[in-house]
Amino acid sequence: MSPKKATEKYTEKKYNDLGLGVKETSGVYRTLNKDGTFNVRKINVSFLERVNFFHTLVSMPWPRFLGGILLGYFAVNIVFASIYMLIGVENLTGMKQIGGTFEQFMEAFFFSAQTITTLGYGRVAPLGLMANIVAATESMLGLLSFALATGMLYGRFSKPKATVKYSAHAVIAPYQDINGFMFRVVNVQENQLLEVEVTVSLSLRREQSELRDFFSLELERSKVVFLPSVWTVVHPISDTSPLHACTAEDLEEKDAEFIVTIKAFDESFSQTVYSRSSYKPAEIKWGQKFAYLVTYEKDKIAIDIERLDETYDAPLNS
Amino acid sequence: MSPKKATEKYTEKKYNDLGLGVKETSGVYRTLNKDGTFNVRKINVSFLERVNFFHTLVSMPWPRFLGGILLGYFAVNIVFASIYMLIGVENLTGMKQIGGTFEQFMEAFFFSAQTITTLGYGRVAPLGLMANIVAATESMLGLLSFALATGMLYGRFSKPKATVKYSAHAVIAPYQDINGFMFRVVNVQENQLLEVEVTVSLSLRREQSELRDFFSLELERSKVVFLPSVWTVVHPISDTSPLHACTAEDLEEKDAEFIVTIKAFDESFSQTVYSRSSYKPAEIKWGQKFAYLVTYEKDKIAIDIERLDETYDAPLNS
Amino acid sequence: MSPKKATEKYTEKKYNDLGLGVKETSGVYRTLNKDGTFNVRKINVSFLERVNFFHTLVSMPWPRFLGGILLGYFAVNIVFASIYMLIGVENLTGMKQIGGTFEQFMEAFFFSAQTITTLGYGRVAPLGLMANIVAATESMLGLLSFALATGMLYGRFSKPKATVKYSAHAVIAPYQDINGFMFRVVNVQENQLLEVEVTVSLSLRREQSELRDFFSLELERSKVVFLPSVWTVVHPISDTSPLHACTAEDLEEKDAEFIVTIKAFDESFSQTVYSRSSYKPAEIKWGQKFAYLVTYEKDKIAIDIERLDETYDAPLNS
Amino acid sequence: MSPKKATEKYTEKKYNDLGLGVKETSGVYRTLNKDGTFNVRKINVSFLERVNFFHTLVSMPWPRFLGGILLGYFAVNIVFASIYMLIGVENLTGMKQIGGTFEQFMEAFFFSAQTITTLGYGRVAPLGLMANIVAATESMLGLLSFALATGMLYGRFSKPKATVKYSAHAVIAPYQDINGFMFRVVNVQENQLLEVEVTVSLSLRREQSELRDFFSLELERSKVVFLPSVWTVVHPISDTSPLHACTAEDLEEKDAEFIVTIKAFDESFSQTVYSRSSYKPAEIKWGQKFAYLVTYEKDKIAIDIERLDETYDAPLNS
Repeated sequence: MSPKKATEKYTEKKYNDLGLGVKETSGVYRTLNKDGTFNVRKINVSFLERVNFFHTLVSMPWPRFLGGILLGYFAVNIVFASIYMLIGVENLTGMKQIGGTFEQFMEAFFFSAQTITTLGYGRVAPLGLMANIVAATESMLGLLSFALATGMLYGRFSKPKATVKYSAHAVIAPYQDINGFMFRVVNVQENQLLEVEVTVSLSLRREQSELRDFFSLELERSKVVFLPSVWTVVHPISDTSPLHACTAEDLEEKDAEFIVTIKAFDESFSQTVYSRSSYKPAEIKWGQKFAYLVTYEKDKIAIDIERLDETYDAPLNS
Repeated sequence: MSPKKATEKYTEKKYNDLGLGVKETSGVYRTLNKDGTFNVRKINVSFLERVNFFHTLVSMPWPRFLGGILLGYFAVNIVFASIYMLIGVENLTGMKQIGGTFEQFMEAFFFSAQTITTLGYGRVAPLGLMANIVAATESMLGLLSFALATGMLYGRFSKPKATVKYSAHAVIAPYQDINGFMFRVVNVQENQLLEVEVTVSLSLRREQSELRDFFSLELERSKVVFLPSVWTVVHPISDTSPLHACTAEDLEEKDAEFIVTIKAFDESFSQTVYSRSSYKPAEIKWGQKFAYLVTYEKDKIAIDIERLDETYDAPLNS
Repeated sequence: MSPKKATEKYTEKKYNDLGLGVKETSGVYRTLNKDGTFNVRKINVSFLERVNFFHTLVSMPWPRFLGGILLGYFAVNIVFASIYMLIGVENLTGMKQIGGTFEQFMEAFFFSAQTITTLGYGRVAPLGLMANIVAATESMLGLLSFALATGMLYGRFSKPKATVKYSAHAVIAPYQDINGFMFRVVNVQENQLLEVEVTVSLSLRREQSELRDFFSLELERSKVVFLPSVWTVVHPISDTSPLHACTAEDLEEKDAEFIVTIKAFDESFSQTVYSRSSYKPAEIKWGQKFAYLVTYEKDKIAIDIERLDETYDAPLNS
Repeated sequence: MSPKKATEKYTEKKYNDLGLGVKETSGVYRTLNKDGTFNVRKINVSFLERVNFFHTLVSMPWPRFLGGILLGYFAVNIVFASIYMLIGVENLTGMKQIGGTFEQFMEAFFFSAQTITTLGYGRVAPLGLMANIVAATESMLGLLSFALATGMLYGRFSKPKATVKYSAHAVIAPYQDINGFMFRVVNVQENQLLEVEVTVSLSLRREQSELRDFFSLELERSKVVFLPSVWTVVHPISDTSPLHACTAEDLEEKDAEFIVTIKAFDESFSQTVYSRSSYKPAEIKWGQKFAYLVTYEKDKIAIDIERLDETYDAPLNS
């Protein structure tokens, strides 16, 4: 055996585990959820090691993010208002005419809000060393913390999301003189995706075993220059495909999972975006073909998104 | 047939549809407009799914963007002025001396403007709980919304645009001992484009059919390290070219479209940029060659942009 | 010899020095520290050439960064307070009622703080040409310098860090019918790493020499599509491996160093991240295999991070 | 001839013109300056087409940039002060006590500065419709324009520069059993450069002609994983090198230019950076070898930058 061959034996791999790290499973499960998140949890890792504040803030839902800013603004002003009360309201000019403690606290609260936003009307203003120190500190903290809040706000707003929509079902349909595993993707939004690359992997449980094999499926075409329209991704089920001679029952029994990854460059955001999804056997239609959804208007080509999942009967090649 | 060959049969493709998803057309049409936008429209997709606010804001014309900010500023101040009027102007100190409702509304309007920009002169200032709550809220909203507006402003300003200028016409010109399809590109701006890659695809309608074939054209050179000057992109029409033995009439009849994509790294913006254009048969000159547009000054090489489209007669090889 | 071969002789290299530039060493040393920094120092380079303020500010620890901002804020206000004192406090309205020089300086200090943050209460305000010029300059400088400070603050916050955790030890374990050099990596944080690539290089000192050879180790798999779980990186010790027939004593004697580089795309930060580490002979366990750390919960796959370094005895193939 | 060969004949190129677009020159000239800029000028292109404001602002020297901001701030306040004067100073409260027109203009000027920075002391404040409209507009314009200015400020500050330092001279030195063209590069700054790629091209004027040929030089190694130290880039002058059997006089006569491009990923800036330089015949030392500049300190490897250009005599192989 030549030296080159010797190495290849151990490095050239048919089975690609995608980094999922999972080769042994009992029962039916889904590695990758439809929304692209993983069914994986890390345990025995400390909070500080695990948490990434930027990730948390960039991926939380909008209402929680905005609510958090509002709550933080409220809480910080409560804290500073309390400090001003402790120092004594007589150190804030323009406040003395008002009576009770609650009213004074509210005045201190609003003075704090005017300070932290660097609004500074000046009707109420700090007098004396302590009040001035607190106010000067608060205004600087305000600039820093609003910079973080507004930075995150814009960061969330300008963060690209791969706006790829997958057909709800995949199909096994006739393809040339054989059959193919197919699904469709479309970019529903107006921004252009460029250099779109798709990879499809198949995870199968071995017969009478709990081990799993991972296969990388060869595609008719794995990259397109742009995606203004709909793209039917096709894996031709040739002699060498792991799907060769497979039936719907086989896939069910082997608890198959088709894992799809799409990588593209989003032109509006000038960034690379990723999208993931997966198909389980129940989401595959056998002997169906996707309907043509392109129509021609006067001077435009029209893509009917509603028909993304439309299929029609198509007898399979045997 | 070896297993490897079996797969290749279905995956190695001559016809590359570029992700345009359009294989069937009637009549003459243009897929890609001269400005790089696509003649594609998505229908039956909900507004919320389709729209991407960042994309919309980053790609709208400057006058509309700036006008929108101005209008939004005006509208928000109208809303807050109305709220202050509802609460009662007696809650704004420094306002009482002025007479009519309109004057009061204007004062409330300008107080609102001073609050939302965190200007806060303080001549007019909120007094009492309600007015203070509204003002504190407004100043925080002002910080957030101005952060979005100014973030978009700078985002638009710092967004790279591939400043590649294409020759208005392509030519079919003699090339070595055969002919070539050629067009020229130049970076008109001062910023450097690096690692410039070009791809050219040809879309042809089949004879007496409505189906379209897509061909990826091989280029003399498809990548250059930098582009300080002009680049004549050449597809040599060899025996294997889909243009081999084609006449101008053939291209017209087959409703040909040459789709050009350029990818580069913009050094000033530190980002990857894309540019697209297309040539239809009417934009191709046969038997013409591009004129040399480089001249030598004392210590600089001069590129005459005005002569980008200049050609001269050059009899084709047969 | 064919012309092609002639060139290959000098360009196809077995020994890859990784750009470390170090081929000659005496004694035991570590090129790459465990935390990914290099044991390299540049001498005889001027401060201005060497220092990069952005790099310094982005890589310093948080306490020093925030302390620096606080200190700068304090120092700048001292400077401007002194200037206002020089001009004369009579040029600041609203200040006159207070007595001693210290009190006046403090008033000037806080007026400066209110000016540089654009807070501007207005209780104290500049009067006359000089005070106004200084205040107008200070407020503009405040906007610029706070923009830098808050930009850095957000830049640090939004800068991705490859959150890859390496097993503390590497192992030499049985692998198929031979042995392998293995270590494990896991992403402890919640953000996803995509297209994860690993390279492993081995640095060995030649016998009875001070020269070093660098070998690039072939891996069972050098790239995974995503890394939601743990990844055991394996270098199969085949006939062609530089580790072939090596013993623990050999590695010790040759002062071996395994240099690991990981490159990935961080989905939350939308950026490429790098991580580096190295293993010295003392950090390699012979005849040990990594324990399986994946367990199955009801509907999630659980990765036990605490067991990352857990190994068990596994007799090596001979 | 097979179809594949037919195409290759026209696409596989020995001569790579790098996109310089210059194949014909008279006399001695330099395409690429030592600092990485090109000796190319575009003529007959309109100002609006050519200029890119972002590029201009990001690449101008710091003093001009900061001076421009200062000047702009001054000019805008002059303009707004004039507007306030036109409206009439009686519309600005708190101003009336001062006498002459110049004093009034200065007050208006400083009021404008307090408005555009959103400082808003409030000692002077707008009264009446017109003054208020102008002030509200000015404060909003202030927010927008300071956002652009500070965005550019931070953009400049956070823009990576490839901090690669080239040896002032290249050398022709013995290399294995032949000779090699060599130069050295070092990253003088503290930030790490990763995945460093170098390409070297040679431009030669044909004998008794004004045409130029461009050769891509094969390198001993064209990519390193990191560059913590110094890297000697080597082009082995094998039989197939365009430098084979070349003398110093030949290079002079052919007006040779060695064009170097370096691409790397800057870890601190998380961005790809490029660096360019070139060597002309006068900058090449024949029969010299670079001196070793690495020394060993207690626990660090020390790189002596001052010795980057140090060479010693080394008789060439023949």
